[in-house]
Amino acid sequence: MKRGYFITMEGPDGSGKSTQIEMLKAYFIDKGYEVIVTREPGGTMISEKIRKIILDTENTGMCPVTEALLYAASRAQLVFEVIKPAISKGKIVICDRYIDSSIVYQGIGRGLGADMVMSINTPAIQNIMPDITFLFDIDPQVALNRKINTSKADRLELEDIKFHKIVYNGYREIAKNNKRIKIINADRDVYAINKDIINCIKEHLKS
Amino acid sequence: MKRGYFITMEGPDGSGKSTQIEMLKAYFIDKGYEVIVTREPGGTMISEKIRKIILDTENTGMCPVTEALLYAASRAQLVFEVIKPAISKGKIVICDRYIDSSIVYQGIGRGLGADMVMSINTPAIQNIMPDITFLFDIDPQVALNRKINTSKADRLELEDIKFHKIVYNGYREIAKNNKRIKIINADRDVYAINKDIINCIKEHLKS
Repeated sequence: MKRGYFITMEGPDGSGKSTQIEMLKAYFIDKGYEVIVTREPGGTMISEKIRKIILDTENTGMCPVTEALLYAASRAQLVFEVIKPAISKGKIVICDRYIDSSIVYQGIGRGLGADMVMSINTPAIQNIMPDITFLFDIDPQVALNRKINTSKADRLELEDIKFHKIVYNGYREIAKNNKRIKIINADRDVYAINKDIINCIKEHLKS
Repeated sequence: MKRGYFITMEGPDGSGKSTQIEMLKAYFIDKGYEVIVTREPGGTMISEKIRKIILDTENTGMCPVTEALLYAASRAQLVFEVIKPAISKGKIVICDRYIDSSIVYQGIGRGLGADMVMSINTPAIQNIMPDITFLFDIDPQVALNRKINTSKADRLELEDIKFHKIVYNGYREIAKNNKRIKIINADRDVYAINKDIINCIKEHLKS
């Protein structure tokens, strides 16, 4: 690989992204690749400070535009410090959430519109788009129950199920129009999901 | 006044904006108006948290786009929570820095360009532009010395004098093309400056 390979994972919290990221990382390391795993919002010292503001349950009065700009700020720093340098050195980057999360959560979920979210994010991503994106497809109620049972919910997870259903439909909508996004049935055994993901990547690298 | 009146103060730290804001506030209160004084970045609970990240001297690795997005996020929340509601209730709002600071510091100073900064800020300001803006005109070296002698310098003040000179010229450039921006000679007695500001406002309200 002369230039690196950029993989993003999308879908609700509780859909099993973290587990799959660890399994995929192990797979690539086993093959001898250098792998960087990161997450959004966060992934750099500055971005983690921004993450705290975004997810703090105290900040209930945050307006949707502020939220979208904070996600973009966190992303700008992550692209600048981590993703862009790693890709240019030929590494594999796996990121838990990226631009599609903003389109879906802020653009569709909060009603800002995909165009506004893209115009905020265009300077942030510096033309760095994922090579392939996996959308973890799972019933929003199932994902929410999983998440709430395992950890303290953050500000966005506290949104009611109606919001999470809008987000779910938003994800499916953007996947429909984008060959980059592969829908993965996430309500299965972790090994079956891992196998699907690896097959998709092999297929993509062939083409 | 059916609709409020929005005044912004621009210019380097150390140029005497805070003193003039207090004097102007006293003037309006004396005339029976309701006055809201606020500042950027900051002015709301969420915006003050964002301010901390922007000005923290630990965050030296912050890239210019991240900086611009954080200023816009702070502004979006301030417009949403404070400025827009106050103006719609007919109040006078005086804000220490606003959109012109972003154009000049990030657009010109950091080299992002005014267009990029405007496209990031358009959703943040929700069409709320100042009615009148005062640019505190003072030699950047004089302002910097004043500021450094009176307080601990923050991340942006630690920039070298070359940056502050670019900002100074940037301010003069945007003032040249914009009738809204009034240049005030800030290297004078505070009462003389106050008198100039009040005369400008009277003049503007007449027209």
